[in-house]
Amino acid sequence: MALAGRLGATAALVPLSSARARGAQAPTAEPWGKDKLTRLSLRPPDYETPVALLDSFITPVEHFYVRSHLPVPPALEEARWRLAVDGDVETPLSLSVAELRAMPAATVTVTLECAGNGRAFFTPPVAGIQWKKGAVGTARWRGARLADVLKRAGAKSTARFVHMQGADRPLGTMPAFVRQVPLDKAMHPDTLIAYEMNGQPIPPVHGFPLRAIVPGWEGAYAMKWLASLRVSATPSDSFWVATAYRYPSRRVAPGATVAAEDMAPLTGLVVKSLITTPLDGATLPRGAIAVAGFAWAGERDITRVDISTDSGATWQPARLVGEQQRYTWRRFEYAFEATRAESCLILSRATDDRGNVQPAVAHWNPSGYLWNQYDGVRVEVR
Amino acid sequence: MALAGRLGATAALVPLSSARARGAQAPTAEPWGKDKLTRLSLRPPDYETPVALLDSFITPVEHFYVRSHLPVPPALEEARWRLAVDGDVETPLSLSVAELRAMPAATVTVTLECAGNGRAFFTPPVAGIQWKKGAVGTARWRGARLADVLKRAGAKSTARFVHMQGADRPLGTMPAFVRQVPLDKAMHPDTLIAYEMNGQPIPPVHGFPLRAIVPGWEGAYAMKWLASLRVSATPSDSFWVATAYRYPSRRVAPGATVAAEDMAPLTGLVVKSLITTPLDGATLPRGAIAVAGFAWAGERDITRVDISTDSGATWQPARLVGEQQRYTWRRFEYAFEATRAESCLILSRATDDRGNVQPAVAHWNPSGYLWNQYDGVRVEVR
Repeated sequence: MALAGRLGATAALVPLSSARARGAQAPTAEPWGKDKLTRLSLRPPDYETPVALLDSFITPVEHFYVRSHLPVPPALEEARWRLAVDGDVETPLSLSVAELRAMPAATVTVTLECAGNGRAFFTPPVAGIQWKKGAVGTARWRGARLADVLKRAGAKSTARFVHMQGADRPLGTMPAFVRQVPLDKAMHPDTLIAYEMNGQPIPPVHGFPLRAIVPGWEGAYAMKWLASLRVSATPSDSFWVATAYRYPSRRVAPGATVAAEDMAPLTGLVVKSLITTPLDGATLPRGAIAVAGFAWAGERDITRVDISTDSGATWQPARLVGEQQRYTWRRFEYAFEATRAESCLILSRATDDRGNVQPAVAHWNPSGYLWNQYDGVRVEVR
Repeated sequence: MALAGRLGATAALVPLSSARARGAQAPTAEPWGKDKLTRLSLRPPDYETPVALLDSFITPVEHFYVRSHLPVPPALEEARWRLAVDGDVETPLSLSVAELRAMPAATVTVTLECAGNGRAFFTPPVAGIQWKKGAVGTARWRGARLADVLKRAGAKSTARFVHMQGADRPLGTMPAFVRQVPLDKAMHPDTLIAYEMNGQPIPPVHGFPLRAIVPGWEGAYAMKWLASLRVSATPSDSFWVATAYRYPSRRVAPGATVAAEDMAPLTGLVVKSLITTPLDGATLPRGAIAVAGFAWAGERDITRVDISTDSGATWQPARLVGEQQRYTWRRFEYAFEATRAESCLILSRATDDRGNVQPAVAHWNPSGYLWNQYDGVRVEVR
């Protein structure tokens, strides 16, 4: 594939061959609840989190969804890892993890969501991993600021993008996984090169030893096994930048074909909510029913969540719990009295601080991204 | 079938054999736009109205949807028609159409809708005629008051129901079409034995020469070719009363099996709206886009209609046009500016004077009745 050829120069920067030869390894006890997650792909590993395991503000690492485009690189070794920083910079760098750890550390708590979360629900159906509701989770990430690294390298005034590449290698028909971040987002003090997830080294499936964290943006920006940052005046022509992870610039009809020039890169999660209690399909006794869940909107804050217990005819505000932290989901709670035996569809609808509201019908798009219509669970009251 | 046997006594009242022998016939020029309607069944005739033909307050007779359970009786003849009134009455009657015309006349304008309108949209699918949006229409009906007929016959104090039967005959596996009206609705001054539809004799497919009009209730109460009224202290055990046209007494899960004792008769249309302009699938130039349609709620009045042009995220009130007439749909109008080329889903959501609001998700039920979720049309703005 021509794409892979064009990526050759970047791919050469990946320190895989040296890492393979080393003895010191990544944590081998994989803190990853394989048995508890729902497997959508074995190789590369793609696992979603059952909604039942998403009922806490911080998602435990072992319950965190796993999204990979390519297999986990073998023989990951922190001691010999190098992060290359080059392109339109005054001083190309090759940084060790220790050097990154020596830089001022920052911590951000981020709700990470796969752009394709909910893809399974689009009509007409869309090709790709058929994520339902569980390609989302919240974790605390600690690392160096990407801005500090770029300042140390001295990005030139012509710089507009940072192309990122991980240590995972192209395989078969799958081109190397390259993504890019516009310079202003890359320079934001909350954008990190993380080396910890929930206070521990990042597990291998989640990107050990380094992972980019681009808060509020789609999970695809959170490059795992981060090995290369190339500063550039021009956009990457990688498949994953030029073709994938793009969304129509305007609303399109379901099933429509969209011309490439009418697609633009994704640049942030949209307003959305998820009911985690009760679970869909639950049978509950008559009386008080507690509803709870999380709502998030990428870089935006959640200002309200409304709940309907009559299939969307009428809505009541839920209580928002705790303080809004930027980039994280907000817990909501609601209680109602179920006075009779019946089947009850409970819907949630979030609003963000720009007044964006979850739609009743998600906006279809050719890749099935950003599915965000009302969440709903059906319970049987007995 | 046992049902047909039990109905034998009532069926004997139907004056078909005498009508067949007569020369004077119903209007033969059928004012029925067969070519303009959408045929769902040829025999018996079931035709729905394309939404494009529903953009007027009064639906022309030739565009009015046709719902029949059994074939149109042959040789309909007004001059020899008899309406039998018997059962729990002091004085059984056999009324000619001329006698009914001699009674005080009343006119009601009624939005008539098939209980199964929208059945095609239920998930999981439901058996039965797959009506989409067009089994609805509004007509002016003129006739005698059912109450006046019942008073003349002298309904006994034990009377609770009026069983109605038309002149259509059981055929194959289809039992005779019998329906019943509770006495209080039957005695309401707006409940008619109609002999005119939109100022003309009722066309044969619509019930010539007599049709019951039970305003605000499902079309199935509007018995065509009305031949028999039997006053009774007990409910009919007819298939169409005891089994069909029943709705769960409480909300049920989609696809659920519902016990017979948990089903109750339908007793009125629910709040609903229909966008008639623009048409679904239309391509429109950028600029002002006019939205219009009708909303109705059976016996209730419409108090507001809201429109969304962003897939249900935000809503704006439409203008309600003219005065609300009881039992009729209310026209709504709305305009918005489409500033860019895109696919736009326009939704409508009506509210009635009891505060009932159309749901985002229709309430599934085993027979697929009363589908009333938000109406929607998708237009392509160029």
